[in-house]
Amino acid sequence: MSDLEIRPATAEDLPAIVAMLADDPLGAQRESPDDLAPYLIAFERLANDPNQHVVVAVRGDKVVGTLQLTIIPGLSRRGTTRSIIEGVRIHSDERGSGLGTQLIEWAVEESGRQDCRLVQLTSDVTRTDAHRFYERLGFEATHVGFKKSI
Amino acid sequence: MSDLEIRPATAEDLPAIVAMLADDPLGAQRESPDDLAPYLIAFERLANDPNQHVVVAVRGDKVVGTLQLTIIPGLSRRGTTRSIIEGVRIHSDERGSGLGTQLIEWAVEESGRQDCRLVQLTSDVTRTDAHRFYERLGFEATHVGFKKSI
Repeated sequence: MSDLEIRPATAEDLPAIVAMLADDPLGAQRESPDDLAPYLIAFERLANDPNQHVVVAVRGDKVVGTLQLTIIPGLSRRGTTRSIIEGVRIHSDERGSGLGTQLIEWAVEESGRQDCRLVQLTSDVTRTDAHRFYERLGFEATHVGFKKSI
Repeated sequence: MSDLEIRPATAEDLPAIVAMLADDPLGAQRESPDDLAPYLIAFERLANDPNQHVVVAVRGDKVVGTLQLTIIPGLSRRGTTRSIIEGVRIHSDERGSGLGTQLIEWAVEESGRQDCRLVQLTSDVTRTDAHRFYERLGFEATHVGFKKSI
């Protein structure tokens, strides 16, 4: 396989990113790959926020993975800055290739460069394969993740 | 009891906020109420970030509660903006007074005003009382929360 590059996403990457968000058991019901307008609005907001890092993994000229890293300053733990990983998606052609590991390792390293001392993420309770994956990468399931739709 | 006000925190509130962060079974080991310097640095960063809302609840002239609300734009779920609640603390004199409910309800309402469609939080697996509290307020324990220290 050709070399992998992990770089900031651009608006031109949105069709490929949204296709990956939708190609997922949970995402299939939530996304609209035929209507990119709401994603473009969100992308503009992300691109203008220095604490937001939406990246894509590219092999050759094909977008094969994505994630969103958010840097969150805070008071607790003596003013610790933490990061949160969201929206991790790997193209179906690449699952099992080790790309997920490379993307998460990138996110952990970038968090360190941004002076974070803690990296957090939540994973739907139904994604048991993902839980094992994160535990192999040194994450601990220390918390219960609550959500409320409004 | 006198009226409650929920307002943005100022640097003058930091001693009271840090005292509450430290007055907690988990926080006691993590915080340094006798050395506010790292909290002041973090507070400056929070105060300059329009997506960060550190608030205090004040009764009379006493700070009795705090939380941090972070607004997170994102691509998934058709460009949904979500919020994350962190660092919820209630002064020991006020526990059981309904103040926790008022603070979380404030955070949910503020999230709506900021166009969020989802409010998230994680709670340490050992805080079972807190889990029941959040479920009573309409939060669902849909996710597993992972953390990695770096």
